[in-house]
Amino acid sequence: MTTRWDHLLLDATLATFVGEAPYGLIENGAIALHQGRIAWVGPQRELPGDAETLATRVDYLDGALVTPGLIDCHTHLVFGGNRAHEFDLRLNGASYEEIARAGGGIVSTVKATREASEDALFAQALPRAHALLADGVTTIEIKSGYGLDLDTERRMLRVARRLGKALDITVRTTFLGLHALPPEFRDDRDTYVDLVCDVMLPTLAGEGLVDAVDAFCENIGFTPAETLRVFERATQLGLPVKLHAEQLSDLDGAALVASFNGLSADHLEHLSEHGVHAMAHAGTVAVLLPGAYYALRETKLPPIASLREHGVAMAVATDCNPGTSPLLSLRLAAGMACTLFRLTPEEALRGVTVHAAKALGLADRGTLAVGQRADLARWNVHSPAELCYWIGGSNVLREIFLGGELLSPEP
Amino acid sequence: MTTRWDHLLLDATLATFVGEAPYGLIENGAIALHQGRIAWVGPQRELPGDAETLATRVDYLDGALVTPGLIDCHTHLVFGGNRAHEFDLRLNGASYEEIARAGGGIVSTVKATREASEDALFAQALPRAHALLADGVTTIEIKSGYGLDLDTERRMLRVARRLGKALDITVRTTFLGLHALPPEFRDDRDTYVDLVCDVMLPTLAGEGLVDAVDAFCENIGFTPAETLRVFERATQLGLPVKLHAEQLSDLDGAALVASFNGLSADHLEHLSEHGVHAMAHAGTVAVLLPGAYYALRETKLPPIASLREHGVAMAVATDCNPGTSPLLSLRLAAGMACTLFRLTPEEALRGVTVHAAKALGLADRGTLAVGQRADLARWNVHSPAELCYWIGGSNVLREIFLGGELLSPEP
Ligand SMILES: [Zn+2]
Ligand SMILES: [Zn+2]
Repeated sequence: MTTRWDHLLLDATLATFVGEAPYGLIENGAIALHQGRIAWVGPQRELPGDAETLATRVDYLDGALVTPGLIDCHTHLVFGGNRAHEFDLRLNGASYEEIARAGGGIVSTVKATREASEDALFAQALPRAHALLADGVTTIEIKSGYGLDLDTERRMLRVARRLGKALDITVRTTFLGLHALPPEFRDDRDTYVDLVCDVMLPTLAGEGLVDAVDAFCENIGFTPAETLRVFERATQLGLPVKLHAEQLSDLDGAALVASFNGLSADHLEHLSEHGVHAMAHAGTVAVLLPGAYYALRETKLPPIASLREHGVAMAVATDCNPGTSPLLSLRLAAGMACTLFRLTPEEALRGVTVHAAKALGLADRGTLAVGQRADLARWNVHSPAELCYWIGGSNVLREIFLGGELLSPEP
Repeated sequence: MTTRWDHLLLDATLATFVGEAPYGLIENGAIALHQGRIAWVGPQRELPGDAETLATRVDYLDGALVTPGLIDCHTHLVFGGNRAHEFDLRLNGASYEEIARAGGGIVSTVKATREASEDALFAQALPRAHALLADGVTTIEIKSGYGLDLDTERRMLRVARRLGKALDITVRTTFLGLHALPPEFRDDRDTYVDLVCDVMLPTLAGEGLVDAVDAFCENIGFTPAETLRVFERATQLGLPVKLHAEQLSDLDGAALVASFNGLSADHLEHLSEHGVHAMAHAGTVAVLLPGAYYALRETKLPPIASLREHGVAMAVATDCNPGTSPLLSLRLAAGMACTLFRLTPEEALRGVTVHAAKALGLADRGTLAVGQRADLARWNVHSPAELCYWIGGSNVLREIFLGGELLSPEP
């Protein structure tokens, strides 16, 4: 061969998530990276020629596990302030009403986000993004939705893009104007939905800040009819849709987003059989968010067995947000998906790799296969199940590769 | 003054856990370290003289939180192998019987621990200890109990001591010979209890390897009568006792350990009112282990309200172990104590500082007060509740001080 590879990893345990073997596992595997892509992957004994001659850099991994870089396909990573004080008040017995009177709840995050400059929002989100990377994440979806006015929604999405550039990772932005009704529209819902559909979404999409459109379809959020309006507008603009659906009640939101061939329906604790069928038919991914289930002490589980039976792809994400899931580790979310939702470790790990990629409409990552982006995680453990088994732990990850470039985790 | 301090931290938010204020909080605080101890602590405005003249090194913390170094008062950190494969099998539907037939359960850890050399056990435990330190821990209790023969129990305890020396932290060792009945004594319980009481305990205590004595008092463990025997032997040897009590059933173990003025009774999900009273009377600490509760998907909560009402000090620990709590973060355990057990963040944080120190019989740490060891954690957050609020996160901790020496976290 004439072209040498940039980087060759040998003696690796590869969880490829390709093929029928559990985890797509290849023991004694080799993987070659070249110009930001995976150039070769397979059993080491099938490598052509002598390793030393094949690559500019060769590393021997001594059996350590390599997976695709993890993909966090549902986060609200950009926000002002935090809600630790509210967490404290609640555990000291304050009622939701008392917390609301003390300025708590999502309104407090909207206020803090509106008051924060772009630089301030960036500075607050950056360590959260670093924390995700330090546990293996290389692609992050980030939603707007704490601005609820054009300027602040724009600022959030610009910060999301900036995080991608600063960290050299892929960030997919999602416009979530229908996240909550802003206080100034309390008595005029329709005008707010008009503003979202007719001004905010087309403006921000025109500025290239929107990769997808989401809504919070819930009794305490927006109705299916309101959701339908923003989905129709997104479709006109050529943008894919996804939905916060069936988290606290069943409004048949999953079927609604599936009817738009939506990327994903997320949460789904109250999903009906009808919703499962609609998602299976449309190929809409079920994004499971066990961090919110845990933090809210929910008891109703998503219908995992039915999703499994109908072949609905299941992804797992952090839902990182200040109110209901201040979760800074996607690996921990995968572990919670096992312990709380009874996914197998393989399902949970497919959920943060190949199925998370599908939930973002990305076909170029989430597996270890030739031609895929060289976004990898190299771990200090040897078996994939350990990624879900260990709870916490700062040093389970060894390093990540971003487009073939090595990045050791930041403390 | 003539003596300069070694190190002075200014502009700190200090959670001292001294006095009546929530968290013993001092805003705009200062803390001086000298010769491994806390030499001054209080509101910065009360500092004598000019800061620049007071200390060899002065740091301005910009409001960042400083707490006592966290104390993990219940771990099984030293063990061979791990049980990730068993975790995987179980989530794929294997029954406990099938797992036992596949060589799973505690027996598999005993086998792997017996087969491991001292160096191998040390090498496996070291990254787990590093993970605890990276989330703020400066003192760790480590139990034996996977050897169940003299040589292996000795090896475990020697590795525990070695971890303390290698990391320059305090390790308190606990002999847990009555952890499980070793397979070779399956038909001869009494002979094993004799061996523990008459040979293993006195020998290891004589070698200076035992700081306290523990047992697993449970239907699937050892009876109260067997526990009594090892407690009597410990008392003869002048060693304090503690107990795994009331985890899966109520054998009145808490009252037993309290009757020996034991340091702590641990787990306690099935603790009775009678046990609470006995603990309160004896000053025995309740060590709560929410990681095991989480991993085992228990539903019966420890009687928190009763413990609170009777003034029993509550500590929180990881129970880090390969079978029922592969938890590598004490901060996450404190968060679980809030979310799952409904402790307030203040109770949870007292539980990993001052009350954890009490559970280990250590009076020289766990608070920020003059004369205490200069074991501190400096955080990247500003309010104590955030330590429990954020779930995971590699960069919540900034650094720890061990006897006044700064240690940035290892990746
Ligand atoms: Zn969400
Ligand atoms: Zn234990």
